Amino acid sequence: MTTQTDILLRDLSDDGVLRLTLNDVARRNALSEAMLSALGAAFDEAGHDPAVRVIVLAANGPAFCAGHDLKEMTAGRAAADGGRAYFTKVMGQCSGVMQGIVNCPKPVIAEVTGIATAAGCQLVASCDLAIAADSAKFSTPGVHIGLFCSTPMVALSRNTANKHAMEMLLTGDMTPAPRAAEIGLVNYAVAEEELQAATMEMARKIASKSTMTLATGKRAFYAQREMPLADAYDYASQVMVDNMLAHDAEEGIGAFIEKRAPQWQDR
Amino acid sequence: MTTQTDILLRDLSDDGVLRLTLNDVARRNALSEAMLSALGAAFDEAGHDPAVRVIVLAANGPAFCAGHDLKEMTAGRAAADGGRAYFTKVMGQCSGVMQGIVNCPKPVIAEVTGIATAAGCQLVASCDLAIAADSAKFSTPGVHIGLFCSTPMVALSRNTANKHAMEMLLTGDMTPAPRAAEIGLVNYAVAEEELQAATMEMARKIASKSTMTLATGKRAFYAQREMPLADAYDYASQVMVDNMLAHDAEEGIGAFIEKRAPQWQDR
Amino acid sequence: MTTQTDILLRDLSDDGVLRLTLNDVARRNALSEAMLSALGAAFDEAGHDPAVRVIVLAANGPAFCAGHDLKEMTAGRAAADGGRAYFTKVMGQCSGVMQGIVNCPKPVIAEVTGIATAAGCQLVASCDLAIAADSAKFSTPGVHIGLFCSTPMVALSRNTANKHAMEMLLTGDMTPAPRAAEIGLVNYAVAEEELQAATMEMARKIASKSTMTLATGKRAFYAQREMPLADAYDYASQVMVDNMLAHDAEEGIGAFIEKRAPQWQDR
Repeated sequence: MTTQTDILLRDLSDDGVLRLTLNDVARRNALSEAMLSALGAAFDEAGHDPAVRVIVLAANGPAFCAGHDLKEMTAGRAAADGGRAYFTKVMGQCSGVMQGIVNCPKPVIAEVTGIATAAGCQLVASCDLAIAADSAKFSTPGVHIGLFCSTPMVALSRNTANKHAMEMLLTGDMTPAPRAAEIGLVNYAVAEEELQAATMEMARKIASKSTMTLATGKRAFYAQREMPLADAYDYASQVMVDNMLAHDAEEGIGAFIEKRAPQWQDR
Repeated sequence: MTTQTDILLRDLSDDGVLRLTLNDVARRNALSEAMLSALGAAFDEAGHDPAVRVIVLAANGPAFCAGHDLKEMTAGRAAADGGRAYFTKVMGQCSGVMQGIVNCPKPVIAEVTGIATAAGCQLVASCDLAIAADSAKFSTPGVHIGLFCSTPMVALSRNTANKHAMEMLLTGDMTPAPRAAEIGLVNYAVAEEELQAATMEMARKIASKSTMTLATGKRAFYAQREMPLADAYDYASQVMVDNMLAHDAEEGIGAFIEKRAPQWQDR
Repeated sequence: MTTQTDILLRDLSDDGVLRLTLNDVARRNALSEAMLSALGAAFDEAGHDPAVRVIVLAANGPAFCAGHDLKEMTAGRAAADGGRAYFTKVMGQCSGVMQGIVNCPKPVIAEVTGIATAAGCQLVASCDLAIAADSAKFSTPGVHIGLFCSTPMVALSRNTANKHAMEMLLTGDMTPAPRAAEIGLVNYAVAEEELQAATMEMARKIASKSTMTLATGKRAFYAQREMPLADAYDYASQVMVDNMLAHDAEEGIGAFIEKRAPQWQDR
C-alpha cells in the first residue's frame, strides 16, 4: 500500500513500518497550513490503522523541516486584528500536531537529514526516537528574527538539560548532529549513507512487538513522566496488572517460557 | 555483625557499610515474592539500624537481577480472577520495595555485575548511586514478551533523557554499561576487577559523614525534585535552617574552622 | 559606563554586555550578607536597565565563589534563638538572589574560573548558561561539615541527572570542569586563556538580539518547564501569538524576508 500527496509521501511496508516523508522541497518542508493538515491527518490515521505498527518520519531535500512558513505567517498580518486570530489558529494547529505525535499509539522515529530548525527541530524533539545523519543540524533560530522559539522549546526542553536547551534558544546557533546526540535531542548520529538502514532496522525491530503492548507502554510513559513518584508507581502498577491480563502478555510470557516465537493477537 | 538468608546476604562492616548481596543465583536473582520480602525487610531494617550508614546492593552470579519471576507470575493466572488480585499484590509489593530504597534514610549504591533486566534494571535506577562493571548490561525487555516494562520505566525515566529511556523500552535491547554511564543510568562503568573497590571506596567516603546530615539531604533531594522552583526553595531553605541548628552542623562547621576532624553525634 | 563597589565590580560594554565580577578575593568571594545584597541589587538593576542586554557573571581570584560565609553564619549562633531567625533571613536572601537570576529578564552567563563550591556551585547552576575554564572545579561539600547542600541542590538537580547530582551531594567530591560539561552543569569547558573570549563571544551574540524577545523567551522557558505538556503548549502558543504581534517580530521577520539587518525597537 502506497498513497501519496504532493507534500507528504506515505509508504507502508509489509512489516508495518509506515514511512512518512516530508516532500515540500521547494519550501524546505515548512510547516505550512497544508503541511500541518497533512501531518495531523497522517498521524491520526496511522494511529487508527491496524496495518501500521511503527512510523518513521523522514524528509526529502536539503532541509528536514524549516519550521513555520514565514511568508504565510506574514500574509496573516493583513487581517483586521493584525493576525491574532490567524496566529492563534496556526499555533494551535501546530501544537496539536506535535501532541498528536506524542499521543499517537504507534512509536514514531525521526530520520533526520539536512537541517531541522524551529518547529522542524520541535518535530524531531516530539518524536519518541530519532536518528540523525552526521551531517544533520538542529537549531531554534527564532531569536534571530525577534520571535523566540517558545513552542519548540516545550518539546526541546523535555529532551535536553536546561543549559543545553537555553544555549540553542538564546543563541539560535546550529547544533551539529553529534552534539545533538550528546545532549539527548536524538538517540544517535550515524553516517548519512547508513541512516535509513539504521532507522529501518530499529523500526522493524519495534514493529515485531505486540501493538497493544507498544500502545500501552507509550501512553503510560508520557502519563507517568508528569506525576510525582508515588502517583507514578500507583498508576504504572495498575497498567502492569492490566497488561498482564491481556492476551499478548499471556502469549508472550508463555512463548518465552516454552522457547517459541509469540503470536500476537493483532497479527 | 553478619547475618545471612539463603537469597539475600548481609554483611555489615565496622565502618557502617552494609553490603546486601542478591544470592538466588539459580533464579538469576529474580524478584520472587521471597526476594521482594527479603529486600523490603532489609532496607527497612537498615534504615532503622544506627550501625548502618551506607548500603551497597550487589549480586552473586551472572545476572545482577532478571526482574520478576515469570514462572511465579504465570502460576498466579490459575486463580479464579485470572491473577488480577495476585498481580496487584506483587506489583504493589515491588513498587513498595523500589520506593523503600528511595525513602530509605541511608544512601544506597548499586554495584552492578552481569545483566540487570526489567525490574532488575529498575532496582539499579532506584538506587541513589550506581557503579557498574564494564561488562554489565541493562535492559527493559518486557516488550519482547508482550508486557511493557511500565513500572521499571518510572525509575528509568527519572534517570535518563526521554529518548534514551524510550529506546530501551521500545526496543528491549541491551544497553552496555559504558552507554548506561553516558545516559545517566549509572554514575560510572569501571573494569570488573576494580568494581568492588570503587564501590566500597565511595561507600566508605559517604559513611564517614554525619548520618543525620545524609538522611536530611537524601529526603530533601527527592522531595524538592518534585516541586516547582519557588516551592523547592522555600522548602529547602527551611531544611537548611533546621540543619544549621542541629548538633552535627555546629560541630562540623566548628571543626572546619578549627581545622580538626568533626565528631558526629551518631558515632 | 563603569561603576564599582569593593566586592562586586560592574562593567557595561557599549554593546550591552554587563560583566559582574565577584571581587571579595580575601573571602574567596563568599556569599556574605554584603555580597548577597550586592548581587541581588545588581541583578535587579540590570533587569530594569535598558542599556543592559546580557549579563556575564565572573570572579576574581582562585575561587569563583566559596558559598556562604561560615564565620558570619557561626557568629549568628550567638543570638538568643541560637541563630534560627538569622539563618532564616540569610537562606531567604540567598534563595532570593538565586531566583532573581532565574527571573531576571536578561540572559545570564556564568564565566567560571577556580572553584565554585556550595552556594557558589548553586550560583553557576542558577545561571541560564555557563562556560568554565578547564581548570575550574565544582562541588557541593556541605556534607563534609554536617550541613547538606540542600538549597544548592535545588539548582543543581535542575541541571543534571539525579545520580550525577546525588554523587556530588553525597560525596562532596570536586567535579572537574570537563565532567561538569558532560553532566550538564556547564555548557562547555574551555582552555582558561580562551575562557573570557568564549564567554564574551556568546554574550555579544545574544546581546545582538531583541531584548523584548529574549525576555519573553527566558520567562516562558522556566514557566513552561514546570507545566504538564498540554498546559505548556497552551501557554507557549499564547506566548508565540503575543510575540508575533510585537514590533520586533514583525521587524525581524520582515528583515529576514527582505534579507536586511533588523532594527530592534529597543535599540
